[in-house]
Amino acid sequence: MTRPTRNKQWVLAKRPHGMISEANWQLKETAVPPLADGEALVQTLYLSCDPTMRGWMEDRPSYLPPVGIGEVMRAGSIGRVIESRSPLVAVGDHVEGMAGWQQYSVIKPGTPFGGTKLPKETDPLLLMGVLGITGLTAYFGLLDLGQPKAGETVVVSGAAGATGSIAGQIARIQGCKVIGIAGGPDKCAWLTKEARFDAAIDYKRGDVGAQLRELAPQGVDVYFDNVGGEILDAVLEQIRLKARVVLCGGISAYNEVAPPPGPRNLMKLVIQRARMEGFIIIDYAARFGEARAKLKSWVDSGELVHQEDVVAGIENAPAALLRLFSGKNLGKQLVKVS
Amino acid sequence: MTRPTRNKQWVLAKRPHGMISEANWQLKETAVPPLADGEALVQTLYLSCDPTMRGWMEDRPSYLPPVGIGEVMRAGSIGRVIESRSPLVAVGDHVEGMAGWQQYSVIKPGTPFGGTKLPKETDPLLLMGVLGITGLTAYFGLLDLGQPKAGETVVVSGAAGATGSIAGQIARIQGCKVIGIAGGPDKCAWLTKEARFDAAIDYKRGDVGAQLRELAPQGVDVYFDNVGGEILDAVLEQIRLKARVVLCGGISAYNEVAPPPGPRNLMKLVIQRARMEGFIIIDYAARFGEARAKLKSWVDSGELVHQEDVVAGIENAPAALLRLFSGKNLGKQLVKVS
Repeated sequence: MTRPTRNKQWVLAKRPHGMISEANWQLKETAVPPLADGEALVQTLYLSCDPTMRGWMEDRPSYLPPVGIGEVMRAGSIGRVIESRSPLVAVGDHVEGMAGWQQYSVIKPGTPFGGTKLPKETDPLLLMGVLGITGLTAYFGLLDLGQPKAGETVVVSGAAGATGSIAGQIARIQGCKVIGIAGGPDKCAWLTKEARFDAAIDYKRGDVGAQLRELAPQGVDVYFDNVGGEILDAVLEQIRLKARVVLCGGISAYNEVAPPPGPRNLMKLVIQRARMEGFIIIDYAARFGEARAKLKSWVDSGELVHQEDVVAGIENAPAALLRLFSGKNLGKQLVKVS
Repeated sequence: MTRPTRNKQWVLAKRPHGMISEANWQLKETAVPPLADGEALVQTLYLSCDPTMRGWMEDRPSYLPPVGIGEVMRAGSIGRVIESRSPLVAVGDHVEGMAGWQQYSVIKPGTPFGGTKLPKETDPLLLMGVLGITGLTAYFGLLDLGQPKAGETVVVSGAAGATGSIAGQIARIQGCKVIGIAGGPDKCAWLTKEARFDAAIDYKRGDVGAQLRELAPQGVDVYFDNVGGEILDAVLEQIRLKARVVLCGGISAYNEVAPPPGPRNLMKLVIQRARMEGFIIIDYAARFGEARAKLKSWVDSGELVHQEDVVAGIENAPAALLRLFSGKNLGKQLVKVS
């Protein structure tokens, strides 16, 4: 292909205050820069939309530095190398990285976040979802922190989302009884029919606690939490002895101006000798290979289904991210850039 | 001694609604019953006052059944056997158990909560505090759940109380930097001078977070929490990577009609890959011996100081318990019955 000259990119225009909107970014066109030694030019194929990106927009310390005003919005990506001055990647290779919201990016393989070569025979859609960060998050969060045992009851919130849907299915594969919490009848039907959860709770129908009590009268052994807020409180009330609460995220509060109060039922952790633990997937990077092999084998055997929700065009990156916070996405939300 | 005939006891008269008062109990006098085979009659020497007793007054499931209306108020105790039809204890033996708020109790050694013989050469005051349930709670909570390493920063709330004061000193013995949070200048002076904490924060002087930031600019590795509420939130905001939050209790909310909202900073557990865990000391019963030997050796060497706050007379049992919730006690609150 001819070397592209113009690069559409979304830069952070202003910090959010409450719910984000497209006005937080600005669409720009810049020149595609020349490469230095060790660099490669990558055409973005897919961009990942993840709830955690909301946190990167804030000007406060976290597990990654904030995105600066005027900087390209950070996002996980898969792309194809179209020019290379790096010995580590060749033209045509697929790489995963943090291209951000732009059509083309310059990467430096072999440096942190510098892009990693991917097997070209594997579907990029798989690599962005079930074999990507969200699938890996489900894998390590559930297995390492949740430690589910066959016969136990596992509850997953945000269950029809990219991470929740995989976490619940891994629990099912471990022989657990799995209950998913999601919003709306379509997502709930998908959970029980396609992802083969034992049951689904529609939180929009009200009283999650009452529905949970009916479905899991013995209580909850593992809770994989993606949402926080009232649902976390409702599940905490019903944890069993030695329960494990895996804090993966708390999307219900990500667009609040200040963090809202936490669960009233925290003392349940004392009475039930239970544990609540948070994690960040980048700590598990050394074990991604092992996890991907396992996840791939479950996908190949049909035990693990996956669902992608794809929006086309770099212009629609903000709109795609916003779908996460209005609960519109079913499965992994992606932007197909080219 | 002549066999006593009359037994003063406090029975639960009505369930609490909000802050407890003496009106929740009624002082009665009953006959001392005859013994059946396998039983023994015990004269109460000391009664233990513990925040967890507030929970036993509620009619809701917990780690022990509720005290029934009209039943003797449950309390940990040490007593002396004055009559025995059990082969396991003899007249003159010291026993620990759950005599409750009464002068005399009938126990059945060898059954759960039936009373356990104690070494008579050890001071009963020691056995009720630093070598008793509160000392053991500090020991296992701090070491098993908190896993403090030399050089780490450990924060303890309720630090001048029976459990907190021991937990902080064990952390100091492990080579940690220890910061206690307590109410008022007297308690804080005791913490730094007698118990040799590195620093003390007086929460009544306001802004615990600001004081903590100054004393521990690197953040907190282990938080041993006895109080919950706003102080838990303030410490959560400053936890370090891989921090351990030991939930021992949450006295700030025990007299609330309904549990108040929890910490806003729960997402810090995610960002810092940290853990919050609850426990109940009775689960560690099999290891009490090992822990008591260790605690005793620290007491003997002078590394571990202990403080008892003793109120005399069974008539004053409710008043003694109330001291815990108004923060009047320094160290282990006891009632000396005879």
